[in-house]
Amino acid sequence: MNSLNNKLAVILTSGGMDSSTILAIAANLGLKIAAIHFDYKQRNRIKEHEAFIELSKFYNAQYTFVSKLYTLGEIGGSALTDYSIDIPKEIPIENSRIPSTYVPFRNGIMLSIAAAWAEIIKAKSIFIGVVEEDSSGYPDCSEKFIISMGQCINLGRKPESAVNLIAPIIHLKKSQIVKIGESLDLPYEKTWSCYRSGDIHCGECPACRLRKRAFRDAKVPDPTSYLVE
Amino acid sequence: MNSLNNKLAVILTSGGMDSSTILAIAANLGLKIAAIHFDYKQRNRIKEHEAFIELSKFYNAQYTFVSKLYTLGEIGGSALTDYSIDIPKEIPIENSRIPSTYVPFRNGIMLSIAAAWAEIIKAKSIFIGVVEEDSSGYPDCSEKFIISMGQCINLGRKPESAVNLIAPIIHLKKSQIVKIGESLDLPYEKTWSCYRSGDIHCGECPACRLRKRAFRDAKVPDPTSYLVE
Repeated sequence: MNSLNNKLAVILTSGGMDSSTILAIAANLGLKIAAIHFDYKQRNRIKEHEAFIELSKFYNAQYTFVSKLYTLGEIGGSALTDYSIDIPKEIPIENSRIPSTYVPFRNGIMLSIAAAWAEIIKAKSIFIGVVEEDSSGYPDCSEKFIISMGQCINLGRKPESAVNLIAPIIHLKKSQIVKIGESLDLPYEKTWSCYRSGDIHCGECPACRLRKRAFRDAKVPDPTSYLVE
Repeated sequence: MNSLNNKLAVILTSGGMDSSTILAIAANLGLKIAAIHFDYKQRNRIKEHEAFIELSKFYNAQYTFVSKLYTLGEIGGSALTDYSIDIPKEIPIENSRIPSTYVPFRNGIMLSIAAAWAEIIKAKSIFIGVVEEDSSGYPDCSEKFIISMGQCINLGRKPESAVNLIAPIIHLKKSQIVKIGESLDLPYEKTWSCYRSGDIHCGECPACRLRKRAFRDAKVPDPTSYLVE
């Protein structure tokens, strides 16, 4: 990735473990950081936004942008934005039904906005922290989708704006991601995974369960306080 | 297109001539209409929204959705959303520079939102009125982009939500589009093309110039009142 050195990279930064790890990876490559965050009235928006601010500062982001995508909440259909749908407690498993926390085409929408912003600030790459396996079974986290979206972005913008769409952790397990983060001194205490909006992680939602399991499997100390251990 | 009969179709409806023509085409195919409109604080948003409402009623839309995409205006970089950039007076010509009215990756963003909505309301197709040639030289109006975006949408959503992304007028000239609209009794007086927000079409902006030329070339009476004929 030498050709990326000293170039501006847009990083989709939710504030969770995965996007924080790609922030750490991009910073470690010597890239200039442009961090974009999305507020779509998700249940955990306040906590995610706090994590975004902290991590943007920590990684010395040269540009930040909080995109207010309330329209995603208006479309509805997800337990993350429709507060009348219960957050499930189970970790989704492979080949199971797509979980109720699925937000329709979320990564397609977010990558489209990121691509528009990338053109304006003249970024040369876009990083997204999707994880195909060992994750939540969302179709917009698959490698096929990411490759297709990268082509789409370059076909639909000015030819001179071509970017690389990079998903550095797409084939990793959550525990491997934690090990990478630890090796790069990622401040995990600044990250937020929980789907709920409590003062501390609930420990029971799918995102908390995946987080706990990742630290445990990686044999990395988990700095997180959980309401239910 | 028999297989589309009696199926729900999402139609991207700006309120201009092109999107109104695809509304007329979809209605003529016997499709149920779900009309989606975008408010991104574009200069002509009030007039476009009025046209959207009128046309949705005229074509008996079963669902309508106005997506507030203010984030597109926040990204900036376009004369349509950045009011400090002048609207040009020239019609862009082929192989010229991309005009200042270009909104970065607008169709990528709008199609992504439309795809999310389509999944919720279980639509079987998405219609977009992009025109590759004889139009404004935007990269996100090319057939390559539309084909790529159609693949992307189906890779990034639930497998059972597969849609056809249809751009029925992509290879037509504006004058041919006007002839189709006339043959389908499209009420052109309800459509709005002008980039500005006056009471009547300005007659001078690129969209007005293309509109006037289309009627003239098609030898179809133009019902539009222009400030400057």
